[in-house]
Amino acid sequence: MRTTPDATEKQYNGLTVLTRGLPAEAYFDTGRHQLELQRIWYRHWIYVGRSSEVPLPRAYRTFELGDQRLMLVRDEHGVLQGFHNTCRHRGAALCPENSGVLRTGAIVCPYHAWTYSLQGDLLRTSSKRHAEGFEVADYPLYRVPVHEWRGFVFVTLSEHPPPFAPSFDPLPQCFDAWPLEELTTGHVLDKVIQCNWKIFWENYNECLHCPAVHPKLSQLVPIYGRGIMDERDDPNWAHHAADPHPKFKGGLRTDASTWSLDGQVTGVPFPLSEKVRKEGALYMTALPSVFIVGHVDYVRVVRLRPLGPERTELKVEYLFSRETLAHPRFDMRNIIEFTDLVMTEDAEVCELNQRGLKAVPHVGGVVMPEEYLIRQFHEWIAAELERV
Amino acid sequence: MRTTPDATEKQYNGLTVLTRGLPAEAYFDTGRHQLELQRIWYRHWIYVGRSSEVPLPRAYRTFELGDQRLMLVRDEHGVLQGFHNTCRHRGAALCPENSGVLRTGAIVCPYHAWTYSLQGDLLRTSSKRHAEGFEVADYPLYRVPVHEWRGFVFVTLSEHPPPFAPSFDPLPQCFDAWPLEELTTGHVLDKVIQCNWKIFWENYNECLHCPAVHPKLSQLVPIYGRGIMDERDDPNWAHHAADPHPKFKGGLRTDASTWSLDGQVTGVPFPLSEKVRKEGALYMTALPSVFIVGHVDYVRVVRLRPLGPERTELKVEYLFSRETLAHPRFDMRNIIEFTDLVMTEDAEVCELNQRGLKAVPHVGGVVMPEEYLIRQFHEWIAAELERV
Amino acid sequence: MRTTPDATEKQYNGLTVLTRGLPAEAYFDTGRHQLELQRIWYRHWIYVGRSSEVPLPRAYRTFELGDQRLMLVRDEHGVLQGFHNTCRHRGAALCPENSGVLRTGAIVCPYHAWTYSLQGDLLRTSSKRHAEGFEVADYPLYRVPVHEWRGFVFVTLSEHPPPFAPSFDPLPQCFDAWPLEELTTGHVLDKVIQCNWKIFWENYNECLHCPAVHPKLSQLVPIYGRGIMDERDDPNWAHHAADPHPKFKGGLRTDASTWSLDGQVTGVPFPLSEKVRKEGALYMTALPSVFIVGHVDYVRVVRLRPLGPERTELKVEYLFSRETLAHPRFDMRNIIEFTDLVMTEDAEVCELNQRGLKAVPHVGGVVMPEEYLIRQFHEWIAAELERV
Repeated sequence: MRTTPDATEKQYNGLTVLTRGLPAEAYFDTGRHQLELQRIWYRHWIYVGRSSEVPLPRAYRTFELGDQRLMLVRDEHGVLQGFHNTCRHRGAALCPENSGVLRTGAIVCPYHAWTYSLQGDLLRTSSKRHAEGFEVADYPLYRVPVHEWRGFVFVTLSEHPPPFAPSFDPLPQCFDAWPLEELTTGHVLDKVIQCNWKIFWENYNECLHCPAVHPKLSQLVPIYGRGIMDERDDPNWAHHAADPHPKFKGGLRTDASTWSLDGQVTGVPFPLSEKVRKEGALYMTALPSVFIVGHVDYVRVVRLRPLGPERTELKVEYLFSRETLAHPRFDMRNIIEFTDLVMTEDAEVCELNQRGLKAVPHVGGVVMPEEYLIRQFHEWIAAELERV
Repeated sequence: MRTTPDATEKQYNGLTVLTRGLPAEAYFDTGRHQLELQRIWYRHWIYVGRSSEVPLPRAYRTFELGDQRLMLVRDEHGVLQGFHNTCRHRGAALCPENSGVLRTGAIVCPYHAWTYSLQGDLLRTSSKRHAEGFEVADYPLYRVPVHEWRGFVFVTLSEHPPPFAPSFDPLPQCFDAWPLEELTTGHVLDKVIQCNWKIFWENYNECLHCPAVHPKLSQLVPIYGRGIMDERDDPNWAHHAADPHPKFKGGLRTDASTWSLDGQVTGVPFPLSEKVRKEGALYMTALPSVFIVGHVDYVRVVRLRPLGPERTELKVEYLFSRETLAHPRFDMRNIIEFTDLVMTEDAEVCELNQRGLKAVPHVGGVVMPEEYLIRQFHEWIAAELERV
Repeated sequence: MRTTPDATEKQYNGLTVLTRGLPAEAYFDTGRHQLELQRIWYRHWIYVGRSSEVPLPRAYRTFELGDQRLMLVRDEHGVLQGFHNTCRHRGAALCPENSGVLRTGAIVCPYHAWTYSLQGDLLRTSSKRHAEGFEVADYPLYRVPVHEWRGFVFVTLSEHPPPFAPSFDPLPQCFDAWPLEELTTGHVLDKVIQCNWKIFWENYNECLHCPAVHPKLSQLVPIYGRGIMDERDDPNWAHHAADPHPKFKGGLRTDASTWSLDGQVTGVPFPLSEKVRKEGALYMTALPSVFIVGHVDYVRVVRLRPLGPERTELKVEYLFSRETLAHPRFDMRNIIEFTDLVMTEDAEVCELNQRGLKAVPHVGGVVMPEEYLIRQFHEWIAAELERV
């Protein structure tokens, strides 16, 4: 689930007219999945991982998306370059390993030693003479745009990538208060979920499931226990407009200071505004691959990758400051056992959702009033699929 | 194999004109398999299991057929209700487990707590207000017809199910002498066979294979040792018409009293007529999913389920009376080791049959004179596939 | 890689005009793979194994190619007969096991005991009477042509098989100096490679990869260390025309006598001409399934079998003379550790090649000048696919 942006007009958020979901086949049909790969996953900025995984010149890593295999390498100027992991000669993969450091200052194909600069230009082949019509300049690596932002690496398979910052909702500035580039990965949760990737995002976009699925989280964030994420998700919100209780206003319960087992911070909190500290979590989303949650004393990065129409990889990275990691009282379990539990609860219920979709009479589902962000997600999907 | 119904006219049973089998692709083609699921498996009464698996109100179990997942639940009036295992909200599976007892007197979706009566009516959603145009009455569970017959549970995915009793051959009354509803499952054999479901039924419908495949059974039922199931499967049957030997007339060898390793009953026999006791087995078939064999001292239920064009699940249940299970001399091994052996021999030879079908020149096989019931089976298949 | 046939005109071998490779989909598309099975694999003579695997009358073995299952049986006259492993009755596989000796002098189907002569004629069915129109003579086994050549067994699924000897390049006579029929299999390397079968043959047809992939082999055969297989693969070959060094002329380095770890023969060499002894290896190819290499003291047989568009089985057999196997100083490891290494290096780099082929912008690769035999291979493929 996510928090909604601040409202300017004060009115009820919910859907007021009967709203249908996507057709059931959208969640398991193979042709539909291919289309979504091409029109959505191969066009947007996709989160790969942290810059610290390829820290120095010559460091490289690979990345797979659908059936596309990419390599990222940091060049001699410190710029991260991206390429299809494919030699221009006979198409061999250039990187046999998932990550490492190039032995020389060039990319050398392990098959026939075609040699490319770290910017992807073909420097030389292994042939003694070239045929008429063969020009070295015609065979650079297939390049893919890469963007680093505050320690996060993104790629896109699009030749005309969308502008980077507007890919985020809200815009990246909302994370100014967190020292993102200086954080260290302290824990990773890796999971394969037996569901379509859109099932995961639907789950993310509503809290109607929180009372049944997340009992502990619903205690920590009392408004979730009411099945909503925002004051005005309740049609009767005006009745409680004057009540400051987090049950109505959202945010952490009053005696808690972060998302953790006991609700308490054990490390060093970031220098956040009181408003953010009360809310306890700031969500920023870059569809279709990632959301980043700024917590009071850590940052959680959730990466999604489609492995098939009914299989999705989930990777959760937990980022901490050096001060927190060095703090004598810091107990990481207090954080990760809580949030891993929430993520695991979501993963299980996503699998349950997937399992019921193939019933012959089930044409599709219903989007309920509190699920207005799912409606927005479905509209986004429809618009993306229409762009040729 | 099965026994044939009693004859009224006395003539040779065998086919007298050259008869071709189904085209070879019918046993492995994926499109054909989908068609058979839709036109045959999703239209007929399909055997699920014993009523005793869902004995009391609130007890439920799930059942999968092709890619359809169903749930069966016994309601407060003791009636077994059937539904697609799919919530009307966003399609989640309602039952995360294969069987159990509902915690409340309602079906509550574990995702967003939509709540249904045990008859499948939507009682309430979890939303605080409904959108215009949303009526609770419009969202009952997707219902599937269920029929209980003497302790056996059947479902059908058809909206216009065929009448129940005529689904059986012979009609269910033939089992009047067995106290079916009172029997207890004493042993289950579960097997996945690498073959098309029709290969299994073809094997069931002839005894030409008995001499080579079932040496022990052929000793117990001497006519099987001649490759036939009925006196008049032999073109020269009239020569032996006066000979009462079971080799000609069928049934158990004279010193045996049931289908078991030593041929002897160790429990309490059912009160059967002498004719049935001599035959030793009464077969009743409900295509495409089950046959039930009434033996002298037990009942054997064989359920089939297609898992794919070349994979079929076989489940054999052995039912015993309480008197037999309580009998001090009763040795179940005497029965199950014999019949499990016969079923395993059939399963192996079905896999062998499947393995040879893809030879490029093999357009199809031949149905031999003694295999007249296979011909009937093929005609049934053809008629079912033509019904749109 | 392979050696080129002797040249008659003295000129540069390399391609002089820019040459494209096959379209990338040719290496992973399922429809294309089916077409190649039908137009190439099911039409040519395919290497099965050594005659010694079915030595005596009644010995049989099975063989799978694509989805076709064959059986080979040696008849009472010592002739190897080939059939689809499919009974004409209902299509059951005749041989449940991969190899063995028939119990009787006939092929008896294990399902219903249809009985065939070792030449495949149906001798009798198990039916008591045949239907009108059924003639035993109409139901012989589906025959497949078999050819034995000097201890090697080949089959073809073609009804009009190509002439046998011209299937080889060069012609089989080139192996006259090796006593092929008398050799014994001393070692087998079995490997499944995750690549299309054509990737393997491309690798076989060039030595540009030798310096990077085969460092030890490049030391043993110095011209390979230059990325070529023949004197005139070098555009400047005329400069070194007078230099007898194997670096220019090909063949073993001067202090070596065979393909082995230390380059030395430890068994008994075959009585070969000095020219062949210097070259150290004679390659003979029968596309698409096998190449045979005559070494100084052993013979290496490399069999290929497609298991899917991106999976290929590689089987390497090492054949030795009885004298060599009996020689007290003979150390087989000296040979097999060397050549298994070379084959494994090739297998790994073939998998690497396959892995890079699916990049969206990768339409296909380039065939470099030294890869003129790959060009010939591609022309052969194109011609085979056009033959309807």
